[in-house]
Formats: sequence, structure tokens, C-alpha cells
Amino acid sequence: MDVISVIRAKRDRARLSDEQIDWVVDAYTRGAVADEQMSALAMAILLNGMDRAEIARWTAAMIASGERMDFSALDRPTADKHSTGGVGDKITLPLAPLVAACGAAVPQLSGRGLGHTGGTLDKLESIPGWRAALSNTEMLDVLRGTGAVICAAGDGLAPADRKLYALRDVTGTVESIPLIASSIMSKKIAEGTGSLVLDVKVGSGAFMKTLEDARELAATMVGLGTDHGVRTVALLTDMSVPLGLTAGNALEVRESVEVLAGGGPADVVDLTLALARDMLDAAGLPDADPAKALADGSAMDVWRRMIRAQGGDPDAPLPIAAERHVVPAPATGVLTALDAYAVGVAAWRLGAGRARKEDAVQAGAGVEIHAKPGAPVRAGEPLLTLHTDTPERFAYALEALEGAVTVAPEGTDFTPGPIVLDRIA
Amino acid sequence: MDVISVIRAKRDRARLSDEQIDWVVDAYTRGAVADEQMSALAMAILLNGMDRAEIARWTAAMIASGERMDFSALDRPTADKHSTGGVGDKITLPLAPLVAACGAAVPQLSGRGLGHTGGTLDKLESIPGWRAALSNTEMLDVLRGTGAVICAAGDGLAPADRKLYALRDVTGTVESIPLIASSIMSKKIAEGTGSLVLDVKVGSGAFMKTLEDARELAATMVGLGTDHGVRTVALLTDMSVPLGLTAGNALEVRESVEVLAGGGPADVVDLTLALARDMLDAAGLPDADPAKALADGSAMDVWRRMIRAQGGDPDAPLPIAAERHVVPAPATGVLTALDAYAVGVAAWRLGAGRARKEDAVQAGAGVEIHAKPGAPVRAGEPLLTLHTDTPERFAYALEALEGAVTVAPEGTDFTPGPIVLDRIA
Repeated sequence: MDVISVIRAKRDRARLSDEQIDWVVDAYTRGAVADEQMSALAMAILLNGMDRAEIARWTAAMIASGERMDFSALDRPTADKHSTGGVGDKITLPLAPLVAACGAAVPQLSGRGLGHTGGTLDKLESIPGWRAALSNTEMLDVLRGTGAVICAAGDGLAPADRKLYALRDVTGTVESIPLIASSIMSKKIAEGTGSLVLDVKVGSGAFMKTLEDARELAATMVGLGTDHGVRTVALLTDMSVPLGLTAGNALEVRESVEVLAGGGPADVVDLTLALARDMLDAAGLPDADPAKALADGSAMDVWRRMIRAQGGDPDAPLPIAAERHVVPAPATGVLTALDAYAVGVAAWRLGAGRARKEDAVQAGAGVEIHAKPGAPVRAGEPLLTLHTDTPERFAYALEALEGAVTVAPEGTDFTPGPIVLDRIA
Repeated sequence: MDVISVIRAKRDRARLSDEQIDWVVDAYTRGAVADEQMSALAMAILLNGMDRAEIARWTAAMIASGERMDFSALDRPTADKHSTGGVGDKITLPLAPLVAACGAAVPQLSGRGLGHTGGTLDKLESIPGWRAALSNTEMLDVLRGTGAVICAAGDGLAPADRKLYALRDVTGTVESIPLIASSIMSKKIAEGTGSLVLDVKVGSGAFMKTLEDARELAATMVGLGTDHGVRTVALLTDMSVPLGLTAGNALEVRESVEVLAGGGPADVVDLTLALARDMLDAAGLPDADPAKALADGSAMDVWRRMIRAQGGDPDAPLPIAAERHVVPAPATGVLTALDAYAVGVAAWRLGAGRARKEDAVQAGAGVEIHAKPGAPVRAGEPLLTLHTDTPERFAYALEALEGAVTVAPEGTDFTPGPIVLDRIA
């Protein structure tokens, strides 16, 4: 087997054979195939595609490159959720303890933000003392003790994906449905969950800009999960507007705690409950009542135990940014658009996100939203509040927000669309 | 400027701007763009193409990455030839001294073989004492003293191309007309020749398998040369059958000397004269008579001076391989096909070519051809003789020759096609 023949095959629109896929993924992980060879292959895959059988084999080869976790010794069914990434997407924070409170075990391996989308681990790290890095034993202990754990994936899971993901990030080969689907699913399947709900975002703030692309990605991932014996469901959800009223790390933790306390913005509550119902259903607990677990404080109890088990203090005050800047509504009328991508870039530029993997994030930075589409606004009254420790960034963030807001004349009839656009099982 | 935006642009079928091209070629040469980024871009170019203006700018950027030579101080016009590579293509050997004998200066920077095609430098190195590596000063001295020089290109010419060519070779990104055309022409234009004749090979033994592809490559290169003030003409020539009666290093030198002595196979003589006429015409010497220069020995005189000026002994016996194996004609009748690619691979496997850049070649190895298409053959009589120092390779070479020979019944009317298929100016 030689790598040039594999690259040429995909370049010339052939199917890759099982043997070619197994060999090239393994050889790349071992370093026998060089980065410049894999990036040429990744570009050929991005431009010429892979069929369902190729994607399945590619995913299996990435799983086989590392260890697999096993939660079968737990006394409850496991359920996991993965979001393809959006703006203000703090859903994992209330969702994991909520689903645990309803009887499932939630082993949530999460990532950090890159670009305009935030990362769950960055958000939780704004809680004083909280630790993202756990050994496999620590992770199992937290999961056994509290029902839920949110932590960083260890180096042993799908190392082929880890290496390939870093390569795609610097070679313009991220936006490929076969490569995105196999990357997500190899990690989730290796992690060993019994059931999985995918939150596939669609819209300006998401990687998938169209419902058609999102549907293809969702169907591909559901197929991969099902083929590997993981009960998998995907919700296609709107990401044209930020989720909730905050985008930023500590800002989103505060909002998540409000949801766990029985309050919080309607869209965050709705999406949390929709995902929880599908997770519980897939985990074989169709009679659980997540709305009740939010109302009676049992989800909040799991949250507090989970944060404490990972070294955090759930009662400690959250960091607040040193400086604020208010963005007023530009006109009086009805807010009809608040662009998710623009808000995501603004939060990122304020310090909530990072430009390179090695950068630190500001815990307090971000964007606070005072009105969502459908609400009346008055010219000059606060629409957004920008938070940062480094006020020289305000101008740069404001630039990102240009054109992000649309206000229609008073009396305009405008109803925002639903948060869940479709469901693929 | 950042490399990911350049890769994405070509990936998404956009034109690259002049600034993007200048920046990425320079940054790659300096090492600021990594190999894995350039290989992804090369694959995107291979699959999505470049238009004429992009190719022109890309070529100019590769020329600008290094030094340019200048032959304007010579008292004669310069003419150069480039072949896209074929099997048995020894034409440079008789051609350079022939054109010099007719009054032009021929600065012929040549390469080594890789894969199934032979390299001019490998062939000449079978002459005892001959040196391919000359300094710029030595090169000019040989050119001034004899009218022709055949040597290796120095490191200073188009270093961007040198680096990119090596990368393409290991990443499955060789077969791109924009990248092939810009690679060839950047070296030829930087070399400073005033006129250039391109021998674009078509057929099984060539990189371009179809007349359509060869015509596109030829037109692209002629356009590039013309735009840079080099009088450029391309001949499209047949490479479905090996050129002449030999493929191998010393074997081809011997055949070239026969041509310079006024003999040699008809196809080699015809192609040498056709290329010589176009080179002399482009150099402003339309009245020169290359047929006469072959007949009267003046081309042979230049050959002997040129070989001596580079340390070689034109009278020394050429190396002969230690072992021979005769391949008989499989039937009695008329030979109608002798596949160039199969003969090229056989010669390569016998030791005439190299699998990796750092391998050595055998001077005596190769294939001797006793009949060309159109000739009558008798079952069991010698059709080919294989030469090698390492007889364990015979079986491997014979495998390459399976199906390479077609013999039609006696009396079949078969006339081989012309060697020159088209001319693009």
C-alpha cells in the first residue's frame, strides 16, 4: 500500500477501499504518512466526497486508532449530547445535570472554543476552582457519584482524529461533511455512550449555513451512530440568532444557573428540555419528566454536586469584566434580526474566545443581550452590553456588530420561528 | 494575508488575486507557509484549476523567487528545447550540438529521470568522465566555446518551483496542467533563453495521455513564454511507441551518436530535424540547414567538443550491461503496437531509472528494440533485448511487458502514424 495511490484514487473520484482507509488512517497516526500527504488527501475528500460506506470505514479506523471507554459497569443507562457549535450555546451546562437528575448517566466529553463559537470547558472554567482535566478514574468517580461529568477528552480517544483535526484547522479542510461527521462520531463512539443526541446548528452562527447541509450532516452522523450500536437522534436547531441572552464564559454560566433555578430565557429552556427528552428516550427512560426536575430543584442539586466534585465552588461569585459598553437600539420599533455570527465574533473579539489554541480567554468578557427578535425596542435604549477587561477591544467588537441588528416599524407583525427545525432519527 | 484564506478561495472555486499568488509563493519559498498547507492548495488547484491570468502570475512569482540568467552578452541568439518526457527520448543529445552547429547558442538545462521516463543527465553520465554539475561561469564558458551546453539547473533558478515540485511528487498533485506548465516555464524563462521549442509528448508513454490534454498544456506554455518575451513554439509528438530503438542510458547515447554520424532510426532523425528547424526559426536563423549539418559532420564536431568541455571522453567505450535476455516475437505477421509505457517501465525496472531521487541508475541497463510497428516479425525471432547488471530483475521487467506487443496476421496493411501530430505557435 502506498499513500500516493490512495491520494490519487480519491483525487480521481474513485471510492477508497476498506484496506486503503484502514491503512492510511493507521499510517498517518503512526507518522508513516506525512502531514503534507494527509492534507492533500483531506482536500481531495473535501472536494470529491466520500460515500456512506467510506465514511463508516473512515470513522471505524479513527476509533480503532485509540482506546475505547466502557460504561457498562454503571447501574444506569448512559446518554450523551453533542452540539456542532453555536453562539451562546450553553445548553450542556443545564442539560447534563438535568438528564442525570432524571436517571441517566451523562459522560459529557467537551471541547474548548475556537473561532466565533464558545467552548463548554472555557465556560465552566470561569467557576473558581473547577477543573476540566480528569483521569479516566476520576471521570468515572464523578459520574458514579453525581450522575453527570463534563470534562476534557483524554489523549487516548481517537488519536487519529486529534491529529487530523489539528491538521484540517490549518489547511482549509474543515468544511467537509464526511470529515466533520467522522470526527465527531469517532470521539463519541470511542467514548462508549449507549445513546447520543446531536444538536446540529443551522444558520449564520453555525458551521452549516443551510438546512440542506445540516440535514446531510445530521443524517450522516445518525447513520454512523446507529451502525455502531449507539441509539442516535439529531435535532436541527436554529442558530441565526444567539441562544439565550448571553454569549461569553461567566455570563453563560450565570444564565445556565438561572435555568437550573427554574427561570432563564425561553429559548434556552425549550431547547434544554427538547434535548433532555430525546436523551432520556434514547436511554430507555421515556417516562422521566425533565420539566419537573427543573422545577423541583433536583437538576440544580446535581449541578452543585457535579461542580464541587470537579473542584469548583458553586456558591463563589463569578468573575465580572472590568469594563462595559452599552450599544443602544438604533430605532424604535420591533426587533426582527440579531445576527448570531456577528454577536459571536463580537464576544470573541471582546476576549471570550481565542484566536489560537494556546491563547487564554477572559472569564468575564462577552455580550449581554437585552432584547431578542420579536421584542419591541426604543431608539437609544440599551440593546446590548459589551463586557471586557481590555476596553481597547470595544471598537473592534463594535465593527463586528455593524449591520447585525434590524428594527422594523412599530406595529410590524413579527413572530420568531421555532428553535427546533427538524428531527432526524 | 493568511494562507487559510488563500486555500479556501481556491477550494471554493474563486480566482486567486495577484496579491494572493505573490504572497503564497513567496511565503512558501521562505518557509512561512508549511508543506501541509501548500499541498492542500496544490490539490485544490489540481481539482479546481487556474485561469490563464492566474497561471501567468503564478509562473512570474516562481521566477521572482530566484535568480535569472542572462545570455544577452553572447554573440549569437539562444534557443532551447524542453520535452515533457517520454520513453527513449534521447533527442536532446543530437539536437543541442546540431542546432549549435547551425549558428544558435543552446543552453540546455536538463533533469534526471523519475518514474518510467529517462533523464538526459542520466544518459550523458554514462559517458566516462562527463560532469552534469557546472557553475554558472563554467556553463557560460562551455556555451561560448562550443555553442552548446547540457547541464543540471543550479539551485538559484526558481527555488519555489524546486520546492513545490518535490512536494507535488509525494502528494499526488503532479498531474495538473496549470502546475506542470508553470513549473516548466518558470525554469525556462528564468534560464534566460530567447527562444524555446516545446516537445509535448502524447500517448501511453507520456504524462499527457490524450491529444486534447496535450494541446491544452502546449497552448498554456506557449502563452506563458510569449507573455514573457520568449519566442515559444510547441510540437505535439507521438509517444505511444518508444522513440528510436533503445530505452536506457548508454544505449541511448550510442543511438544518438549514430544520428550525429548521419545514421540512426528514422523517427529519431525526423523529430530531431523538426525540432531543430523550429528552434533555428525561433532564433532568427530560418535559412540554416540542419540536415546538412548532420550529413557533413559539423554537428558531430560540436558534440565531441561539448562532451570534452564537460570532462567526458567521446571516444571512450560506453558501459555495457553484464546480462542480456532476448524477448522473441510472439507470432509471425506485422507488428502493429509496441507500448511505450510498458517499455519505459521495463527499462526502469531493469535499472535504467530510479524509484527514489537518491537512487543510482545502471549505465548499461535498458531495452533494445529490434522491430518497430509497421515491420514484419517472425515468431521466435528476437523482438527485444533486455539489458541489466542485475539479472534477478528480468522477471520483473518481463511482467511489465505483458500485453505490450501486438502482432497482426501477415499481409495486414499497417502504416504507423506521423511522429509530429500538431504544432502550436
